[in-house]
Amino acid sequence: MTDASAAEPPAAELRVWGISGLPEITPGDHLPRLVADAARRAGVEPGDILAVTSKIVSKAEGRIVHAADREQAITDETVRVVATRARADGGTTRIVENRLGLVMAAAGVDASNTADGTVLLLPLDPDASAAAIRAAVEACVGTPVGVVITDTAGRAWREGQTDIVIGASGVRLLDDLRGSRDAAGKLLEVTAPAVGDEIAAAADLVKGKASGIPVAAVRGLARLLDDDAPGARSLVRPHADDMFSIGSREAYEDGYRAGFSAHAPEDRDRVEE
Amino acid sequence: MTDASAAEPPAAELRVWGISGLPEITPGDHLPRLVADAARRAGVEPGDILAVTSKIVSKAEGRIVHAADREQAITDETVRVVATRARADGGTTRIVENRLGLVMAAAGVDASNTADGTVLLLPLDPDASAAAIRAAVEACVGTPVGVVITDTAGRAWREGQTDIVIGASGVRLLDDLRGSRDAAGKLLEVTAPAVGDEIAAAADLVKGKASGIPVAAVRGLARLLDDDAPGARSLVRPHADDMFSIGSREAYEDGYRAGFSAHAPEDRDRVEE
Repeated sequence: MTDASAAEPPAAELRVWGISGLPEITPGDHLPRLVADAARRAGVEPGDILAVTSKIVSKAEGRIVHAADREQAITDETVRVVATRARADGGTTRIVENRLGLVMAAAGVDASNTADGTVLLLPLDPDASAAAIRAAVEACVGTPVGVVITDTAGRAWREGQTDIVIGASGVRLLDDLRGSRDAAGKLLEVTAPAVGDEIAAAADLVKGKASGIPVAAVRGLARLLDDDAPGARSLVRPHADDMFSIGSREAYEDGYRAGFSAHAPEDRDRVEE
Repeated sequence: MTDASAAEPPAAELRVWGISGLPEITPGDHLPRLVADAARRAGVEPGDILAVTSKIVSKAEGRIVHAADREQAITDETVRVVATRARADGGTTRIVENRLGLVMAAAGVDASNTADGTVLLLPLDPDASAAAIRAAVEACVGTPVGVVITDTAGRAWREGQTDIVIGASGVRLLDDLRGSRDAAGKLLEVTAPAVGDEIAAAADLVKGKASGIPVAAVRGLARLLDDDAPGARSLVRPHADDMFSIGSREAYEDGYRAGFSAHAPEDRDRVEE
């Protein structure tokens, strides 16, 4: 049987609610069990998707470093520098690709909602964390359940931040409509809604930043549950395919140096000697 | 009284549902009245937010051009070319800033869900369209109601598309938390969730691309309703502030030319000696 789900009608209704009752998470806590208990008490059922803020995953994993080591932590998490800009406070904002493939300010190293003098690193393997939480929740409330791990990210071209998916288990994140037809019968050639990020965004509307509610449940998207769905890296565009793989100023400066050298091959030879 | 709403707890629950029963929209239709009637029948109440797909606004406004004129239409809608790339079919994909300030492929000119041989331009003034729909809905179901006009856009760094807000009336789109405190009592210095885009994303999960459901209602975000909220351009980052204001290749080429020229005067000197 071919996968016909992309052409299914979308959910008629979505319900998104915050899951309260989780204790303050500290290193070593068994997060999957704590989330599963809270999810059961909050009425989570098979077919639901849980959106878990990465912060509590990081805390349970003990991914905490001293704030004094923040700049070094950002460097350690960095695979590739995408853009930098001097801040008014004398520091430098670094937009980088981190080891998860995510392009984020400060590599996703976060100083909010942590104890004074500390910063939080992103979870080591968010897909694995999502799978562990999913297994615990399914054991508790029944199967299937989907889990996404979310974090907050800025965007090019637009103000403000939205939540995105950085880890996932059991959820189709890209609702690939290429090959299916719209209501007028036309082929939807280039359309692939990033439903994973849309779920993260919807969940953020009930979790909020100032509330301390770190988990939300989403009901009405059982069509996206898929045991074989790939992890969160499937939403990362490889930087070779990306028209915005480095900042405009950085690209300009690279080009300037290349143009300058190209005009003066003798100079370049001299430098290389 | 200062605005304390940014520090309010987020909605405990969100309900998002598709509004069916709208007729196929054609040029000249009184869209506000049609949406208001459908909203009333779908149980929309004061405090709710409607997310309206831009496509039906464009159709009602008659923003339809012949497909043969598509490339010219993209040019006409373009304020600034951001990046271009050759396609396999011999054409060129143009990522541009359009007259609404939005950075979009093909300036937002759309060939899906339209009659054969035609393409759709974005609405002329989506904030005004949102205001007109809002007035009609409020007259029908009571006040206050919020309205956002949504469209689908690609992103830098990430695969797939998400829906964003391109027009709005009566909804705070940026939930500026700067100055408020997190659950640990720390200042949230740089956090400003783009709740408008998160609403658009949540609505897309029930509207879908293949379904023909062009309007969704969102309940549970009455805290974001605000008569004085600015329009959708408030989510547009001015390109002078944007670290990704032009494509990496375009910036490199600009730099290359500048570097090449900068070297040229010395060559001229040398020749003159």
